[in-house]
Amino acid sequence: MRTYIDCLPCFMDQALRAGRIATKDEAKIKELLDYVGSMIKDIPMENTPPETGNIIYREVRRITGVADPYKEIKKFHIKEALALYPELKKIVSLSENRLLTAIRIAIAGNVIDLGVNKKFNLIEDVAKILKQDFAILHIDEFIEELDKAESILYLGDNAGESVFDKVLIEELGKPVTYVVRDVPIINDVTYKDAIASGLGEVAEIISSGTSAPGTILRLCNDEFIRQFEKADMVISKGQGNYEGLSNVNRLVFFLLKTKCEIIAKHLHVQENDIVLKASDYN
Amino acid sequence: MRTYIDCLPCFMDQALRAGRIATKDEAKIKELLDYVGSMIKDIPMENTPPETGNIIYREVRRITGVADPYKEIKKFHIKEALALYPELKKIVSLSENRLLTAIRIAIAGNVIDLGVNKKFNLIEDVAKILKQDFAILHIDEFIEELDKAESILYLGDNAGESVFDKVLIEELGKPVTYVVRDVPIINDVTYKDAIASGLGEVAEIISSGTSAPGTILRLCNDEFIRQFEKADMVISKGQGNYEGLSNVNRLVFFLLKTKCEIIAKHLHVQENDIVLKASDYN
Repeated sequence: MRTYIDCLPCFMDQALRAGRIATKDEAKIKELLDYVGSMIKDIPMENTPPETGNIIYREVRRITGVADPYKEIKKFHIKEALALYPELKKIVSLSENRLLTAIRIAIAGNVIDLGVNKKFNLIEDVAKILKQDFAILHIDEFIEELDKAESILYLGDNAGESVFDKVLIEELGKPVTYVVRDVPIINDVTYKDAIASGLGEVAEIISSGTSAPGTILRLCNDEFIRQFEKADMVISKGQGNYEGLSNVNRLVFFLLKTKCEIIAKHLHVQENDIVLKASDYN
Repeated sequence: MRTYIDCLPCFMDQALRAGRIATKDEAKIKELLDYVGSMIKDIPMENTPPETGNIIYREVRRITGVADPYKEIKKFHIKEALALYPELKKIVSLSENRLLTAIRIAIAGNVIDLGVNKKFNLIEDVAKILKQDFAILHIDEFIEELDKAESILYLGDNAGESVFDKVLIEELGKPVTYVVRDVPIINDVTYKDAIASGLGEVAEIISSGTSAPGTILRLCNDEFIRQFEKADMVISKGQGNYEGLSNVNRLVFFLLKTKCEIIAKHLHVQENDIVLKASDYN
């Protein structure tokens, strides 16, 4: 997905939010906003938004001197999600359609997103999403591909959401490789977060090699590209990965909650919808 | 009121909204956002936000070539407000406290503000504000000053809101001078809009001489400054005038609804509160 003009003010909002989390020093936040303002004119509109996000959060780290501003928040979200895990497992085991319920749960975890300007209440939002209708539900194709697959590449999104991903991975019943960001970026899931979420018990964990808050293939390492090309099935969580991969030339299943009007429009759905979408590709 | 770091992303939002109203040409809107982004680093944080607004909307006019993007919207709001006028007059005449009801009505009209990112429904919002508690209500001082005053300077804010101002001006029972912006800026009230709102029947109308979306004394003309200094009482409507005059060295009564978190904080109230505040000055 390319960058839209609506993304430009949003980059400034993101910088302000991230700056505030990293530091209380208003002068540093001002320096950050000055930097992001100045770079607006140089943002290639054909680039995906997470590529610009990558630069913004690099500057957050450089200007504030804080390498991982979301470290404690991520720990808290993983703890909160792990406390819910037994209940989530019970919901799956009591449901009529275990796989679809686990997919819903994985999408519900996608509310834990600090890159967007939305507050969330994990327990309330999960309960709501468990009853919410899908705006796009390519479940037949998903099941068909899952039945055939001998290897699944699962692209993680946020820390905490990773625990919800574990619930879905346990229902897939196939060997799964779980992909994390290479370094801390916003509250995105890293190797350490994935281990803390218990994903080491159910999947191989690899890094995509990128520090961008989304999967942008030309920023990923060779090992990830190799796995992305050869995996029988690819499952992609969240907006950042969707933005990076929406035009990619292979079948990818996108699982996400739309939390931004531009992405919702791009998917032809409404904001706050839930989506299981098979990518359009030739 | 100075500029806060939260204002910086908001300037980009304003530019996008105004650009969209002025043109459908995305390249021009992009040029506008590039310009505003680049000027972020040069914004003096000690300036009031409407000073920067002045520059942004000047660039909207220059880049899009549209001198008055809000012309039709203003006409519509004045028409909508004039249709409500008989009902508003009836509400005043049936009320136990005519003056306070007219003040409430004048504040209710302040929802017609296209400089902020808030949707409004005029009829519903007016009904709500008529029942809403004030967060600040310096009514005793207001009445005391009104009783003594032989001249009142009334600083208008938005077109359409101007009709609501007429209702209050008719209750003041004193000679009123109504102040408008010198040229069209956002949906702020100009001379032409004030006449269309029927204000010529109840007040003398003068221009502040400024194109800024707020009253910033050093941008105003001499005639306005003279009247601002000599008027027995000054009533100021809306956020833009508050931002410009909050630190001024005379008594001013601010009537507004808070539609921005930063202004609400500055007033020690909440967003969406209604306020009748006498200025703090020495």
